[in-house]
Amino acid sequence: MNAPKIEGIIKAHERILGHVHKTPVLSSESINSITQSHLLFKCENFQKVGAFKFRGATNAVKKLSTDELSRGVCTHSSGNHAQALSLAAKQAGTKAYIVMPETAPRIKVNAVKSYGADIFFCKPTLAAREEKLEEVQKRTGAHFIHPYNHPDIIAGQGTAAFELINDYPDLDLIMAPVGGGGLMGGTSIAAHSMAPSMEIYGAEPANADDAKRSLESGRLIPSVNPNTIADGLLTSLSDLTFQILSDKLDGILTCTEDSILQAMKLIYERMKIVVEPSGAVPLAVVLEHPDVFRNKRCGLIISGGNLDLARFDFSAF
Amino acid sequence: MNAPKIEGIIKAHERILGHVHKTPVLSSESINSITQSHLLFKCENFQKVGAFKFRGATNAVKKLSTDELSRGVCTHSSGNHAQALSLAAKQAGTKAYIVMPETAPRIKVNAVKSYGADIFFCKPTLAAREEKLEEVQKRTGAHFIHPYNHPDIIAGQGTAAFELINDYPDLDLIMAPVGGGGLMGGTSIAAHSMAPSMEIYGAEPANADDAKRSLESGRLIPSVNPNTIADGLLTSLSDLTFQILSDKLDGILTCTEDSILQAMKLIYERMKIVVEPSGAVPLAVVLEHPDVFRNKRCGLIISGGNLDLARFDFSAF
Repeated sequence: MNAPKIEGIIKAHERILGHVHKTPVLSSESINSITQSHLLFKCENFQKVGAFKFRGATNAVKKLSTDELSRGVCTHSSGNHAQALSLAAKQAGTKAYIVMPETAPRIKVNAVKSYGADIFFCKPTLAAREEKLEEVQKRTGAHFIHPYNHPDIIAGQGTAAFELINDYPDLDLIMAPVGGGGLMGGTSIAAHSMAPSMEIYGAEPANADDAKRSLESGRLIPSVNPNTIADGLLTSLSDLTFQILSDKLDGILTCTEDSILQAMKLIYERMKIVVEPSGAVPLAVVLEHPDVFRNKRCGLIISGGNLDLARFDFSAF
Repeated sequence: MNAPKIEGIIKAHERILGHVHKTPVLSSESINSITQSHLLFKCENFQKVGAFKFRGATNAVKKLSTDELSRGVCTHSSGNHAQALSLAAKQAGTKAYIVMPETAPRIKVNAVKSYGADIFFCKPTLAAREEKLEEVQKRTGAHFIHPYNHPDIIAGQGTAAFELINDYPDLDLIMAPVGGGGLMGGTSIAAHSMAPSMEIYGAEPANADDAKRSLESGRLIPSVNPNTIADGLLTSLSDLTFQILSDKLDGILTCTEDSILQAMKLIYERMKIVVEPSGAVPLAVVLEHPDVFRNKRCGLIISGGNLDLARFDFSAF
């Protein structure tokens, strides 16, 4: 399995055009004033299914053969990839089989159901997910589309940065949150090719910093029971995303849980948009490491906006 | 005091151009599918200070003479008008003196402070507000800018509908929330003149339905202790706004507190934007009276997005 190149991202962009939203880029004078930098937010919370994941899923499903499509698609996902693959399968006229941890937010479970997918719950561990998925795959013959260890997924996720850099070619720096590394992988491939002098950073919660530790040690170190409110970033890098991030990134910067809450609060109160905790992680990193970003034009990818409002504790705001 | 005409709104639009945001108009396929109508939301939650009120305040302050400006401006307001006048005064280089009920949301009090205004707290009754304001006015000589019983304020608020109808001249219907009637007044004057066949409705919580009762009985009936989560709509119509609304509206439609919550939930979850309860009242009305809106192109004004997230009870979502 090879990393996609910029050509793969350009083709993905053409393939999914008209099926995904070209999301808006927003900025906030007051957040710029607080951070003393110029931040441009690529708002994937406004993407279909509320997250960038729909880009990769649509690209991957559209590349399947008629024969593959006829048996359906399957995956395991804590949430947004599940929704994304379910809707992409529905739009392609096929069935999606989704393995979800029983701890997944209700809002995400309901959304997957609403797209007509079949859900199979499992314990919230990677081993349990993989075991359940194998069982589902054996029974259905469905094609497995991994949430991030998959070149077509990575190429699809890279189209967000592709759009952002096309619209703002003079960015000094680009940053996305790092969970499994699909979004960050695609982002770094796009940025490295389109603007070789652009700085490329990954943003990670300190409580789920497997990517930072992996890149610093030069070997893949999976997370062990990560505990962060950024529920989209609990997964660990894969072989493929580890390789891409090692190759392309200037570094990974981390942030505390408090900074994530503070960043969410700023985004809600100043920008008046809904983000999930994972989507606020890049701004949280800016708040915590202001010197890296001061006076620079920075593109930050807001990864998604799927928050279970009824369960989220806003009292710390 | 006479009601403004469309010429006043056009002049207000020119006067405040470049000082206020031209706010975006958003729509949601899933909300359209639920309501079986085509809803276009004019997003004043993205306006400066997070609400349409900045339009009227900027217009009113810009019309003051140098002599009037030198003594500052004052008002009483439960929140958004206070922020709006404070920022408009700051931008005009003068002082704002704001009388606020001690029950005003913290987020709004903090915002007013951040714009450099002086705050005077009072009991949450109209009598207490007016008494405190008179005291402040006597001491400072500041010019009183009423939140809605003021032609320049009404003309300024009308610029939101003016922009919306300019961009979407084929709307069948327009609707805004009704509190004191400044936004609804300006909206109805703009719509009535620009598109005489457009239906014009006001949206009001059933728990604060003074405008509905006033229009139906033909005389001004103030609210007595209204109790609604739509904290921006607690005020009653004034002589001037009652006259405009009586003249221009097809009717006022009300909604329950449950519908307001349901509408907020839809806006947060489907559109991924932050609205305050008052801003969700027009959609709540659509949910409760679907027959009025079915298959029509409807412009709804989302009045603001200033919500004290830490205090709001999302558990009903």
